[in-house]
Amino acid sequence: MSGLHHVGIAVDDLDAAIANYEALFGASVEHRETVPDQGVEAALLRVGGSRVELLRPLEPDTPVGRFLAKRGPGLHHVAFEVADVAAELARLRADGVQLIDEEPRQGLFGLQVGFVHPEATGGVLAEFVGR
Amino acid sequence: MSGLHHVGIAVDDLDAAIANYEALFGASVEHRETVPDQGVEAALLRVGGSRVELLRPLEPDTPVGRFLAKRGPGLHHVAFEVADVAAELARLRADGVQLIDEEPRQGLFGLQVGFVHPEATGGVLAEFVGR
Repeated sequence: MSGLHHVGIAVDDLDAAIANYEALFGASVEHRETVPDQGVEAALLRVGGSRVELLRPLEPDTPVGRFLAKRGPGLHHVAFEVADVAAELARLRADGVQLIDEEPRQGLFGLQVGFVHPEATGGVLAEFVGR
Repeated sequence: MSGLHHVGIAVDDLDAAIANYEALFGASVEHRETVPDQGVEAALLRVGGSRVELLRPLEPDTPVGRFLAKRGPGLHHVAFEVADVAAELARLRADGVQLIDEEPRQGLFGLQVGFVHPEATGGVLAEFVGR
């Protein structure tokens, strides 16, 4: 486990959120991408040596759209960088930990990712991101 | 802005949450402290090169207790490490940004901190932590 890869934040208006994070925290956009399959437009921001991922739903009936409807904008998930996503998922699966992804899949920005279910983490949607 | 200092997570049972984060993410406890003034028992965990702060309310009628009652356990705040908390708060105050702390105060583990209001950040409780 290398540490935090990024913190994911659900937003209503991506342009406004980017401008706000630039002004508040000196953020700068590293990547920006629309992924229809996942129902999001996303921006990965650098804040100092760290990353913040802003997620805007393309439609209300998407995972991030349902999150916004239920909770409003705010902290959505936390991602940990690991050497081998498949190995981390296999380790947790062997321990009986509830996963969203049994196997790695391609996430935003071409990253290999796998999500752990919030039921397993005390209410935190947690993601592994491959190096 | 150096980057993320920690991600703060509200929990019901601190011992259980620590054990769970050790098992899931290879976390280890760096500090643990009860702060009656702030109504929390907190543990700062290392996860690789990053930190996760677990917060258990001492009473229901505390900021973290009210958060748990309203939202349940989960992601609570995000903290950015900065060289000078007072300067960051002054910069945002001059821009008319809504703050929780107008001046730095002593936070958990002896750190100098200042909080930005979630109204200013798109629903994210954000903290500056001094180096």
